[in-house]
Amino acid sequence: MELLSTNVCFEGEHRRYRHTAAALGCTMEFAVYLPPAAVGRNPRPVPALYWLSGLTCNDQNFMQKAGAQKQAARLGMAIVCPDTSPRGLGLPGEDDSYDFGTGAGFYINATEQPWAPHYRMYDYVVKELPQLVEDQLLLTDKRAISGHSMGGHGALICALKNPGRYASVSAFAPIANPSECPWGQKAFTGYLGTDRSRWEEWDATLLIPTARERLPLLVDQGTSDEFLDSQLNPDVLADACEKMHHHINLRMHRGYDHSYFFIASFIDDHLNHHAEALGLR
Amino acid sequence: MELLSTNVCFEGEHRRYRHTAAALGCTMEFAVYLPPAAVGRNPRPVPALYWLSGLTCNDQNFMQKAGAQKQAARLGMAIVCPDTSPRGLGLPGEDDSYDFGTGAGFYINATEQPWAPHYRMYDYVVKELPQLVEDQLLLTDKRAISGHSMGGHGALICALKNPGRYASVSAFAPIANPSECPWGQKAFTGYLGTDRSRWEEWDATLLIPTARERLPLLVDQGTSDEFLDSQLNPDVLADACEKMHHHINLRMHRGYDHSYFFIASFIDDHLNHHAEALGLR
Repeated sequence: MELLSTNVCFEGEHRRYRHTAAALGCTMEFAVYLPPAAVGRNPRPVPALYWLSGLTCNDQNFMQKAGAQKQAARLGMAIVCPDTSPRGLGLPGEDDSYDFGTGAGFYINATEQPWAPHYRMYDYVVKELPQLVEDQLLLTDKRAISGHSMGGHGALICALKNPGRYASVSAFAPIANPSECPWGQKAFTGYLGTDRSRWEEWDATLLIPTARERLPLLVDQGTSDEFLDSQLNPDVLADACEKMHHHINLRMHRGYDHSYFFIASFIDDHLNHHAEALGLR
Repeated sequence: MELLSTNVCFEGEHRRYRHTAAALGCTMEFAVYLPPAAVGRNPRPVPALYWLSGLTCNDQNFMQKAGAQKQAARLGMAIVCPDTSPRGLGLPGEDDSYDFGTGAGFYINATEQPWAPHYRMYDYVVKELPQLVEDQLLLTDKRAISGHSMGGHGALICALKNPGRYASVSAFAPIANPSECPWGQKAFTGYLGTDRSRWEEWDATLLIPTARERLPLLVDQGTSDEFLDSQLNPDVLADACEKMHHHINLRMHRGYDHSYFFIASFIDDHLNHHAEALGLR
């Protein structure tokens, strides 16, 4: 992997890398924040939080806007931010809309043409990217996962589908039941086809009944989020959890919207939640 | 003034406004962060930090990238972010370069045509904007000022030229002696003409000898800042201060660059510095 840039930040380092992603068949960029513990005089491997961003984002939105580095530095936690889709493949229609194709990979493995060979963001974020960064950077194999909106959906399904792989999971304003909202239906139809039975393994709410690991879910949601009722529906996820006695801490925050001002306001709580599970505090 | 948007952030509010700026003869947008103390159930007026951004920025860069709201919320301090120049005037050449014209007002009052009637960012940030927001929002008349790069220069000259107007001043990587660097010389020649004696009142280093108020200067500078030697020259400012026994705390931070990752790393120190002077702690 090729180092694109380094910025010192809270005595740690924010770095951007480029590499060829085998799972996606294209060149990808990603960002890593390494806390002081991993870059200082006696550096040691640290666990990592994988952050999955929402529609239209790339690896930079979270790093620039969430204000997460201060607490990550204190805790000794790395943060890994992948991009949100393959880029620059030239597939027909890939740039036609903000909620499908480029910037909208939905963290699933596509089965429909022409997306199937490339839109495999699930394999990329669950397997290829962790293997790469754990191999080449000073990271342990302890992982936590979180994300926002489309990335909140991504974080939940990655954790629910992979018992033992993540110490903890959380989400900000996740698309909690994508099979039943316009964003999810458009993406799943395009990437997976019209057979709804094939959507189930990519929908957090539908994965809860068969989850083999009861990892507690921390979910933050703003009450003034413009997408709350039309796209996000955390209540449906909470209901599914309640039915299965799967622990969920759904926190509704009065007045907060879908922006990074919301994420910044509560990111430290999430970092602390993950730090606990990762044995950092 | 017209409210463009509101985002709840750390229980306070980030707001964007549009208004017609008399000093500039155009429509301007700006951002304000109001801490919980000023928007909660028993709101009370709070003092404000004016933040002046650098070249190419608008009112949003600091609000989105500096991570300042958490500490501002705790301290009960508002933050006011103006834009960096007039916008959309259609003056010949205003959009030709990143370091002159649009996005590059340099917080001075131009005397040369065609800039003179509009490029009066000094009057705007020192007088018009504070008057407006103190009149229309829950702000006291206690003010602090800070900024980055071109905005660090702006903060220093606004404070040095206006004894009693600001409780405190600080700067990140300021253009400390603009008369002697390419950015400053280009801007001053264009806005003020070639007579260098007319530049002196807009150059922090040259203002130190006649400063009527010895407001201590807090200046943070990264040692890996790509503009340190060519454009910023904080040493020259420090020398001028030393000669006049004007207190300066110039902190050189090993490895940090010119980015917002640098600003975010030390913004809380600056907020605490201003809070002290504003009587907030």
